[in-house]
Amino acid sequence: MTRPLALARMALPLALALGIWFAPVPAGLTAPAWQLFAIFLAAIVSVLVGAFPLLTSTMLAVAAVVLTGTITPAQAFSGFANASVLLVVIAFIVAQAVVKSGLGRRISLFMVSRFGGSSLGLAYSLVLTDAVIAPAFPSNTARGGVLFPVVLSVAQGANSRPDDEQGRRLGGYLMYCSMASLAVSSALWMTATSANPIGVQIARDLGIRIDFGVWLLTASVPALTAIALLPLVLLKLFPPGVNATPDAPAAARAALAAMGSLSRDEKVTAVAFALMVTGWIFADPLKLNVTSVAFAGLGVLLMTNVLTLDDIAKQGDTLTTFLWLAVLFALSGQLNELGFMGYVGQRLAARLSGMSWPVLYVTLVVLYVAIHYLFVSQTSQVLALLAVFADVGIRGGVPAPLMLFALLFASSYFSVITPQGGSQNVIFVGSGYLTQPELYRLGFLVTLFFLAVFLTVGTAWILAVH
Amino acid sequence: MTRPLALARMALPLALALGIWFAPVPAGLTAPAWQLFAIFLAAIVSVLVGAFPLLTSTMLAVAAVVLTGTITPAQAFSGFANASVLLVVIAFIVAQAVVKSGLGRRISLFMVSRFGGSSLGLAYSLVLTDAVIAPAFPSNTARGGVLFPVVLSVAQGANSRPDDEQGRRLGGYLMYCSMASLAVSSALWMTATSANPIGVQIARDLGIRIDFGVWLLTASVPALTAIALLPLVLLKLFPPGVNATPDAPAAARAALAAMGSLSRDEKVTAVAFALMVTGWIFADPLKLNVTSVAFAGLGVLLMTNVLTLDDIAKQGDTLTTFLWLAVLFALSGQLNELGFMGYVGQRLAARLSGMSWPVLYVTLVVLYVAIHYLFVSQTSQVLALLAVFADVGIRGGVPAPLMLFALLFASSYFSVITPQGGSQNVIFVGSGYLTQPELYRLGFLVTLFFLAVFLTVGTAWILAVH
Repeated sequence: MTRPLALARMALPLALALGIWFAPVPAGLTAPAWQLFAIFLAAIVSVLVGAFPLLTSTMLAVAAVVLTGTITPAQAFSGFANASVLLVVIAFIVAQAVVKSGLGRRISLFMVSRFGGSSLGLAYSLVLTDAVIAPAFPSNTARGGVLFPVVLSVAQGANSRPDDEQGRRLGGYLMYCSMASLAVSSALWMTATSANPIGVQIARDLGIRIDFGVWLLTASVPALTAIALLPLVLLKLFPPGVNATPDAPAAARAALAAMGSLSRDEKVTAVAFALMVTGWIFADPLKLNVTSVAFAGLGVLLMTNVLTLDDIAKQGDTLTTFLWLAVLFALSGQLNELGFMGYVGQRLAARLSGMSWPVLYVTLVVLYVAIHYLFVSQTSQVLALLAVFADVGIRGGVPAPLMLFALLFASSYFSVITPQGGSQNVIFVGSGYLTQPELYRLGFLVTLFFLAVFLTVGTAWILAVH
Repeated sequence: MTRPLALARMALPLALALGIWFAPVPAGLTAPAWQLFAIFLAAIVSVLVGAFPLLTSTMLAVAAVVLTGTITPAQAFSGFANASVLLVVIAFIVAQAVVKSGLGRRISLFMVSRFGGSSLGLAYSLVLTDAVIAPAFPSNTARGGVLFPVVLSVAQGANSRPDDEQGRRLGGYLMYCSMASLAVSSALWMTATSANPIGVQIARDLGIRIDFGVWLLTASVPALTAIALLPLVLLKLFPPGVNATPDAPAAARAALAAMGSLSRDEKVTAVAFALMVTGWIFADPLKLNVTSVAFAGLGVLLMTNVLTLDDIAKQGDTLTTFLWLAVLFALSGQLNELGFMGYVGQRLAARLSGMSWPVLYVTLVVLYVAIHYLFVSQTSQVLALLAVFADVGIRGGVPAPLMLFALLFASSYFSVITPQGGSQNVIFVGSGYLTQPELYRLGFLVTLFFLAVFLTVGTAWILAVH
């Protein structure tokens, strides 16, 4: 990158921040909400134009929002204590135990022996596993914590590493398949992500009662269509480089046989993950905090020396993820708290009067998805905007079940739009197989694909069953 | 370690936790306070007996307190968003810029060229620098952030590294000198740590008005005595291995000449630290949050590529420190919030009636210091116990200024009693030059030394000037 270009890239977000900051505050917004938007947008844009890595822009942003008095230190730092953020951090650390113990290699060899005739076969085995186990996981971040070590082991087993420009593509393909799979498997089942029950509650307030079976019936056709096409779509959007590998299954079977029986560390890891998964599945009835279940798992892995302090010492990347995720989470949350999100939603919705209901329906869904660029949590957008958007649609003549289900499903699949659009993404993003520009490009294209499926197949199906 | 011994070490803290947990809750305490105490004590004891590293015991403890419903997840995770904890983390990261840029080497060569004829000379140059700059730093953690990179560079320059059993001793000696120096320099000046102004406020409520000059006059003789003796005392308690190095100053001068003029990265680092130090010094009048000043400094160092993502990727140790410090901070804070600390203080104080005032005075100061084993923050003990202890002493006949000043000074110097007794310690502890058992041993002995100085010289001087 030439020096003038680099400087221009740095100047753009700064100019943007200053331009918004000193522009008149729109009526209906407070000055802090407007200033926070200026800084938040500049931080995201500086990453998009390649001026800075996310860590740099978030460190500057958190300093700016506090030192200018836009928000308080307690508000700016609140993301560090957020249970979802901590779950990402701990899930990332415990995943190393699966890799280090050899259990991940064993599982990945098993998967390759069964499905490893092609990259596509591997991808299908991952997305189908995710779709099947999803209803048992009330937190899709926890589910990501289970899938990620397997994906990482499969990638490493195929000699795909983040620092190898060509070789990383298989890992990147599988990582993105899994991340996008989590987004759509969360739309398939009412209990597959914590945002869904909140959306169901909001729907009830608007007069539509939804239970587990109704949700599954309504979601089944569009979500299964998206799941079925996802590995093929990504094969086009991010070719893994390796395709047919007909000899791989036999080689994997041989390697699996050579591994012999489970080692002590593999057994401990398997038990620790079995306990964590049990805790995550029964989190709601037993009132277990999912993050604390992960802390317990980490404690057991450390206590048994499966993970050592030296292993953690190599995980500085996790610290980087922790720092930027916590800051983005807090800033996005504050933007919401200060009323900015609600203001934008209402302004957008207010401009849509007078449209025919099908146009209004499509416009609302597309806007609802696009606005997720500003959110770092699915739940916070559901809380902030679902009721506003549904209300505008229903008043404008869109059938209530259609409007609500379309927005409820969007609240899951829009999470891939940015690398930080859902906490579960961050586990996969942190692996380093994909660059930030790639993540934004794929996020845009895969979101378009999901929108296309849900607006066509989904709309037809929802109207058919309701 | 033999296997039965290892198992016994693990069983002891577990038995302790269960024993306290199932013992009857003392009258005046709530069950959660008692249960939290059981878990907190077991976590500390498991480290003391060498059963687990601090990371392991804190991960198990945070899982235990939440999963048993003793405290809420938000309470248990609050330490991660604490500004002091975050300042430790960021100070640790930015310190690497001083080392990496070469600025630390230059400063350390300069120091060795002037004072490097012996380890003792180096130690004196560090503690005297600290004593002189202390009144300008309202946060002793921030001051630690300035001292630490210099100490680290001096240690590395002398080829002292944490993983070299003999060679690490010089680094360990200098690290401990600096850490203990921060404790006593904080007692010397009213503005040298954030706990002091809070103590002054409490003293005012008890009828004693203290200003900057009165504090300095009263503290001067005992604090300067302790500072003057500290490097010598530690030379006995933790011999650095290297003593007289008469050729070192000349060699350092030659190396300094060979370094030439400041590099671009050294200049950027110097400017970034100058900005941070300015921010820290004027934090109070300008209402700047000290942690955000550190975030800004980190942002600048990343933006200018003095620090890169690869540098942070090597800092997994900082993640370890972040995890255990945040958990201990939150658990100790909750123990206080739940009334446990106040209960213990009042019970202890109530038993002391009927003593002559000099015996009462000494007993109260010693107990006040010893109870800091349970605290992970100086400020929280000042808030919880200073007024209770002072009140008991004054009612029992101890002259009010003597009682208050003795407790105020103790509130600074007791911070070395455990590695987590003050946030500033953690920066030095995290360097790995000293083991946990060494830190507890030195903490005990140096605290005894401080107690001896302040109870003899200090008592005489306070009585003389008040």
